[in-house]
Amino acid sequence: MIIPIRLESSTVRGYNVTIDRLPKLSFDTKVVIVTNPTVAGFHLDNLLSKIDAKDLDVVTVKDGEEYKNLDTIVDILDELFTKQLDRKSLLIAFGGGVIGDMTGFTASIYQRGIDFIQIPTTLLAQVDASVGGKTGVNNRFGKNLIGAFYQPKAVYIDIDFLKTLPKREFSAGMAELIKMSVMFDREFFEFLEKDDLSSRDSLNRAIARSVELKAWVVNQDEKEAGIRAVLNYGHTFAHVIENETNYREYLHGEAVAIGMVMANLLSYELALISLDEVDRVKNLLIKHNLPITYEIRDIEIFYNKFFLDKKSSNSKIKFILPKSIGDFEVRDNISKETILKVLAKFKRVDR
Amino acid sequence: MIIPIRLESSTVRGYNVTIDRLPKLSFDTKVVIVTNPTVAGFHLDNLLSKIDAKDLDVVTVKDGEEYKNLDTIVDILDELFTKQLDRKSLLIAFGGGVIGDMTGFTASIYQRGIDFIQIPTTLLAQVDASVGGKTGVNNRFGKNLIGAFYQPKAVYIDIDFLKTLPKREFSAGMAELIKMSVMFDREFFEFLEKDDLSSRDSLNRAIARSVELKAWVVNQDEKEAGIRAVLNYGHTFAHVIENETNYREYLHGEAVAIGMVMANLLSYELALISLDEVDRVKNLLIKHNLPITYEIRDIEIFYNKFFLDKKSSNSKIKFILPKSIGDFEVRDNISKETILKVLAKFKRVDR
Repeated sequence: MIIPIRLESSTVRGYNVTIDRLPKLSFDTKVVIVTNPTVAGFHLDNLLSKIDAKDLDVVTVKDGEEYKNLDTIVDILDELFTKQLDRKSLLIAFGGGVIGDMTGFTASIYQRGIDFIQIPTTLLAQVDASVGGKTGVNNRFGKNLIGAFYQPKAVYIDIDFLKTLPKREFSAGMAELIKMSVMFDREFFEFLEKDDLSSRDSLNRAIARSVELKAWVVNQDEKEAGIRAVLNYGHTFAHVIENETNYREYLHGEAVAIGMVMANLLSYELALISLDEVDRVKNLLIKHNLPITYEIRDIEIFYNKFFLDKKSSNSKIKFILPKSIGDFEVRDNISKETILKVLAKFKRVDR
Repeated sequence: MIIPIRLESSTVRGYNVTIDRLPKLSFDTKVVIVTNPTVAGFHLDNLLSKIDAKDLDVVTVKDGEEYKNLDTIVDILDELFTKQLDRKSLLIAFGGGVIGDMTGFTASIYQRGIDFIQIPTTLLAQVDASVGGKTGVNNRFGKNLIGAFYQPKAVYIDIDFLKTLPKREFSAGMAELIKMSVMFDREFFEFLEKDDLSSRDSLNRAIARSVELKAWVVNQDEKEAGIRAVLNYGHTFAHVIENETNYREYLHGEAVAIGMVMANLLSYELALISLDEVDRVKNLLIKHNLPITYEIRDIEIFYNKFFLDKKSSNSKIKFILPKSIGDFEVRDNISKETILKVLAKFKRVDR
């Protein structure tokens, strides 16, 4: 199936997200595939057999979030200039979110912008990075602090690439789909409750719905001034959990899963959601092997870390909360007392 | 006077170019002025006295094209993160084209884009860099090869800043105004012929007309696919001259002045312009102390250097030629013979 993405506020003409087996792709320009050794090892031959270009080359960057920085961007740029790419050339991001973010950012600044397409190979990248146009890298001050809003020319989602994805990473991607359903679409949530996504058709359908929902959100708010913030459901808590565990213990999706459970309990505390629904979300997360709890050592310290986020322009903490399943409410006036009460439920019990 | 710039294809809401004495500017955000020691020495106190902000700071970068590279961008970014600028903060580019290009590029990638305004302090930056949204830096492969299209939020042009500009740089800026008049506006050309621009009103009027013309061109072709190439009148020759003299002998505007004379003679050779008009352009350049000749050592070598431009996507050389004064024609099918015939007029005579 093909989902057309049309960003009303964007300079670009929009693009399609195609969810299907990867078709043959033909280009009358130079094409460079940007990938990492892991993805290349599994799937590069397959990809190369599908692409016909005036000139086809591959740039490989090291695998891992720790290489998502400006130094790697400079290395990629150097290779592209050495290969004499011109303004009509095309980059293909072939990998997970890190590859997508870096390839998109490189494309946005190479000769003031060249085209790129995304062929995401992780579930998270397929549902998340494929829509929204966020590109960028980390620096010593934080994550994604340098980058651009830059849209791909096309996205191809082929779930065959997920066959080699570690189970844990697949689950982390599921956290994203569950998040979208809880925020925006009760019917989608119920579909995820009933279906185990083991068939090609079910998984394609779930990915498509998640992509559609994200496109609907982003289209209303490309530059993240309003509703797009709702995509951060679970993230206020997740960021603190990731910070406390030095980004080592949990994959991002796992931290978000825990964060959703925390947000749900806060939502229950504010009488926005029933305990039954809190449990239904928890059960769906468990079904996909996602963690639902975390031992907080010191709830005061945890609370204070909400204020660390460099991107927030003022000192109010914004919580994205489910209002029943399939709807949301944004609150920035919740008392510290209420929040601590919820955090206390996760306090580590010393034995 | 205020010239509204509305780029139809752009994400941004457009902005104004204000040509007047610099007004008091008030911001309810953090503001960082990016400038160099030369401009700061002459004018920073004046600028600081005009700006009211929640928090006001200055970042100084070294003066000169040789520092227009990614290393300097990384240094500026580091300073901005250290100063904890957020997404609502604003940068002010206070200097010539180099400062404008680097500040705009930095603004485009800081947290995926923050606002910036331009207060250009050279004539060239006032008429050229203030419209078009081209930002970027050089690397070892060439000029402006890394960058973004990114529009300022506002531009303030105050000719008082030109009082400290070296005469030679003022003249180089005049080459840009003359270029615009020859390409697009006969009446403007005749105004420049008659007026010596010594009065505030005349100079403001000339700058305004040049800005208007550039905005008209850029609005039709923001991403440089068509008519915007006409702004490169004189540049095909100028780039070779700059290359042969290692960018040391001529300011860019001076090389463009010589390039215009060469293009005009080519235009005459093709019967597009009269010899009288060729002379009128030459005389206007002379009036502003611009060079009009160059000694070519070897015309074959000079010719072959036309093909060096990394940005051209094919091997045809495109010449932008005046068709009488105030109109243009783009040709990419001129015979080598014809071009060599024109170049021969500039051949060095060994004495």
